[in-house]
Amino acid sequence: MTQRIDFQTDPSRYRHWRVDHDGEVAYLSMDVDEKGGLFDGYELKLNSYDLGVDIELADIVQRMRFEHPEVKVVVLRSGKEKVFCAGANIRMLGGATHAHKVNFCKFTNETRNSLEAAEADSGQKYIAAVKGACAGGGYELALACNHIMLTDDGASSVALPEVPLLAVLPGTGGLTRVTDKRKVRRDLADIFCSMEEGVKGKRALDWRLVDEIVPNAKFDEAVAARAKDFAAAAPKPAAEGIELGPIARRLGADGAISYSLVEVALDRDGRKATITVSGPDAAAPASVDELVAQGDRSYLLRLARELDDAILHLRFNELELGLLVFRSQGDPDAVLAQEAVLLANADHWLANEILAYWKRVLKRIDLTARSLVALVEHGGCFAGVLAEILWAVDRSYMMEGDFEGDNRPTARIKLSAANFGRYPMSNALTRLETRFLGEPEAVGKLKDKMGEDLDAAAAAALGLVTFTLDDIDWEDEVRIFMEERASFSPDAMTGMEANLRFAGPETMETRIFGRLTAWQNWIFQRPNAVGETGALQRYGSGVRGAYNMQRV
Amino acid sequence: MTQRIDFQTDPSRYRHWRVDHDGEVAYLSMDVDEKGGLFDGYELKLNSYDLGVDIELADIVQRMRFEHPEVKVVVLRSGKEKVFCAGANIRMLGGATHAHKVNFCKFTNETRNSLEAAEADSGQKYIAAVKGACAGGGYELALACNHIMLTDDGASSVALPEVPLLAVLPGTGGLTRVTDKRKVRRDLADIFCSMEEGVKGKRALDWRLVDEIVPNAKFDEAVAARAKDFAAAAPKPAAEGIELGPIARRLGADGAISYSLVEVALDRDGRKATITVSGPDAAAPASVDELVAQGDRSYLLRLARELDDAILHLRFNELELGLLVFRSQGDPDAVLAQEAVLLANADHWLANEILAYWKRVLKRIDLTARSLVALVEHGGCFAGVLAEILWAVDRSYMMEGDFEGDNRPTARIKLSAANFGRYPMSNALTRLETRFLGEPEAVGKLKDKMGEDLDAAAAAALGLVTFTLDDIDWEDEVRIFMEERASFSPDAMTGMEANLRFAGPETMETRIFGRLTAWQNWIFQRPNAVGETGALQRYGSGVRGAYNMQRV
Repeated sequence: MTQRIDFQTDPSRYRHWRVDHDGEVAYLSMDVDEKGGLFDGYELKLNSYDLGVDIELADIVQRMRFEHPEVKVVVLRSGKEKVFCAGANIRMLGGATHAHKVNFCKFTNETRNSLEAAEADSGQKYIAAVKGACAGGGYELALACNHIMLTDDGASSVALPEVPLLAVLPGTGGLTRVTDKRKVRRDLADIFCSMEEGVKGKRALDWRLVDEIVPNAKFDEAVAARAKDFAAAAPKPAAEGIELGPIARRLGADGAISYSLVEVALDRDGRKATITVSGPDAAAPASVDELVAQGDRSYLLRLARELDDAILHLRFNELELGLLVFRSQGDPDAVLAQEAVLLANADHWLANEILAYWKRVLKRIDLTARSLVALVEHGGCFAGVLAEILWAVDRSYMMEGDFEGDNRPTARIKLSAANFGRYPMSNALTRLETRFLGEPEAVGKLKDKMGEDLDAAAAAALGLVTFTLDDIDWEDEVRIFMEERASFSPDAMTGMEANLRFAGPETMETRIFGRLTAWQNWIFQRPNAVGETGALQRYGSGVRGAYNMQRV
Repeated sequence: MTQRIDFQTDPSRYRHWRVDHDGEVAYLSMDVDEKGGLFDGYELKLNSYDLGVDIELADIVQRMRFEHPEVKVVVLRSGKEKVFCAGANIRMLGGATHAHKVNFCKFTNETRNSLEAAEADSGQKYIAAVKGACAGGGYELALACNHIMLTDDGASSVALPEVPLLAVLPGTGGLTRVTDKRKVRRDLADIFCSMEEGVKGKRALDWRLVDEIVPNAKFDEAVAARAKDFAAAAPKPAAEGIELGPIARRLGADGAISYSLVEVALDRDGRKATITVSGPDAAAPASVDELVAQGDRSYLLRLARELDDAILHLRFNELELGLLVFRSQGDPDAVLAQEAVLLANADHWLANEILAYWKRVLKRIDLTARSLVALVEHGGCFAGVLAEILWAVDRSYMMEGDFEGDNRPTARIKLSAANFGRYPMSNALTRLETRFLGEPEAVGKLKDKMGEDLDAAAAAALGLVTFTLDDIDWEDEVRIFMEERASFSPDAMTGMEANLRFAGPETMETRIFGRLTAWQNWIFQRPNAVGETGALQRYGSGVRGAYNMQRV
């Protein structure tokens, strides 16, 4: 699995999904092409999925929000008879490297979360219309929808058979959503998660595993009626969407990538990638109408898409780069002006979508298992939404005072109102609230500084950056840090950062990415799952896994 | 490491700790005997610890509460010059099996939590008086104290060097307590946790790593004064303790164990242990004075100690028994009568201590990485505190109706007021609140049933048990379940149960046992830590670990 994985797609290239529109309701049909696997060595039978299937789904969810704001309800159903979805493809998992398994699970988790975010942030509700077997990752997909309808045909069931069948966990949020979203009683959850055959009909309803059961003859009709009910009750205003065209991306020598606003430079020997974000290349739209007219060319939307693509690319395709360095260059006031248009029109659908997309992109950065550092240099534009990057990273370095031969404007940070609530982390706190958990009064003080130029001395005094360094120390200190970081065990870094980044309260999201993912990663290392006689390797051979029975 | 590990000890046998009493203040000195390791192959240099050292500490914390209720402040200090504590012994960890490492970390975590519980539940506050190097598990021990004083001698420091030095995490609560108890700013936490040398003096104070720094010449004096201050401010009433004598324990053939109130029977082929708890063997004390006179012979204290010992024994010494089966036999009303004395006198120090001890024992059950099941049989006594076991386990089976040839009283469950708040889980909810997260009104309804005999039909209707089975089905159903459970991958069971058992809110405890522990367990499987060229194996060789630099 060494080919470059591309996260960009569009409807003309979909192989696994079909979207049909009926006014306020969209029907999303999963109809996986068996021969359409991203890699060789497996067939995507029974609507099982691999990363390629999920990349299309993520694209659909994203386009539904930007291109089809008129849609209030999305019905997720199967395009095949007798099977809803059999979950992640087991042969794919069995053949995948540990790193790919972990990255795959994280991306699919992020996509599942985006289904829930669509309702929470944009009023687009997902209904799972389950006919046929709905197992493992298939049921996890249904769990990510906010309403599950199951046909009562005596055969269709929901199931999480991973534990008995494969000796791994339902790791795409399954265990967490069963206990914390569906709030299934824990002994019933224990039974459900340790049976292969799943639960049907009334029992599925009684156990809270689904929201409705419907006689099979009336199923399609009932689903359509329910979708119309939900649509009628949704407050989402009607609007016409914008088109998300292809992003501008040019691959350079040695893995470098140039987007229109983002540059990615690699230093393979130093095991790091530097991501430089540019400030606006045009004036802010004068009105929300102009924003709509700019569409996917508008600065903050374009930047979000490019940054998102860069992060995903580095996660999957550049495994040995342990450190991501964030830089920015541009006019901080111009960044604030772009963001101000969105904030002033936050009740307009497109402004709302762009702000909500930034929330997701910033969470994607928080959840990236690489060491993250930001360099606040002269000429930089870490302002408003871009300043969030400074508190998403593990530490930051800021230039202080004049640097010889450097005529760029002195390094500064600027805060906006959006830093105080628009971009919460997975723990539901803002990055500033998380940062100042020990001195919450510091957040209040920062509110008085909105819009001010905060130079190194001010930023240090306010606790906004980790180090401020002058011309004499800058180069050496930054270099020494990066060299040291590159020498540490990548595993220890991943574990440490996963623990340090999310202080404070926990949410379903942090539980999925923290607790559930960590246990799954552990199991993905254990011989009982991935060893020669482990259940994942033996799946489909007719022979059960042979286990070392020691409990850990 | 196959010798039988015994968790029972007493002051006459301590090799590593010394306790000195000064009225309301006790001084607890760590002075580890280098040659006193629990296993061969390592020396406990620099006040490093292994499980044997921690078993003594757990015993001390327990006796401090029962034998020395007059103590309001415990000062934890080093008995050695120049070193406070160097943490868990690395050679011990390097040589230990995966299962022992994980079990060791869990037990030490439970002991650290017991330091915090001592203040929360009994008003016994622990102060860490740090002189000399305080590194890794040493600083984690200090973090578990609620006040950390550091001498400012230019050399003494606190450090978490695990990540850079050993490629593992500070897994005994270190990362979690840094972010969530000390609320250290996350970029400072990042620096602190990735430096070998630690932080001294004023910086340690500024970064919130310690509560006080004191000039070295005045250190002992300042510690004594602070201890007296805290003691003077503590509301704990003066009282004389009881003695905790040896527990009655007899090892039988084939691993069976008989205590006075607990029987442990093993079925190695079936990979299960059956733990049978007996009801009271004497009438409840008529008064709290009689309770004190009974001391460690009193029913609920004796039972808690025996059950605690049995659980720890099974965890460490019987790794292949994947299922723990809980049974009870006795008079449920007699159990309630014993508990009622404690509840009626909950403001009495001993009644309070016994109730608080049950809270810890029940948490120990929740956190035991084995499948747990309860059998509610005729003649059983799952009432009040013992009924908690029914909701600690993963599922329960209850006898319904008459069983041929069985003349014992019909199976029933009885609730007490204590089930509604006295024994919270690590997530800070009661087991009933956790169980009924999806229908909180069910808990309210149960309150009306306190003291009633709840037979199988009633218990099933109220959701208190998983299955009710009559004479025809009981034996087969229970057997089939146990056989199936024994066939599953132990790792998948551990991961599944760790996720399903703790729905609802998270606390520092659940984060330590869920998130931090899971990541550490993952790292404990990774070649970068435990492989031949991994950091744990190479520690002390003068050669750094050689890492696979792929990030996961």
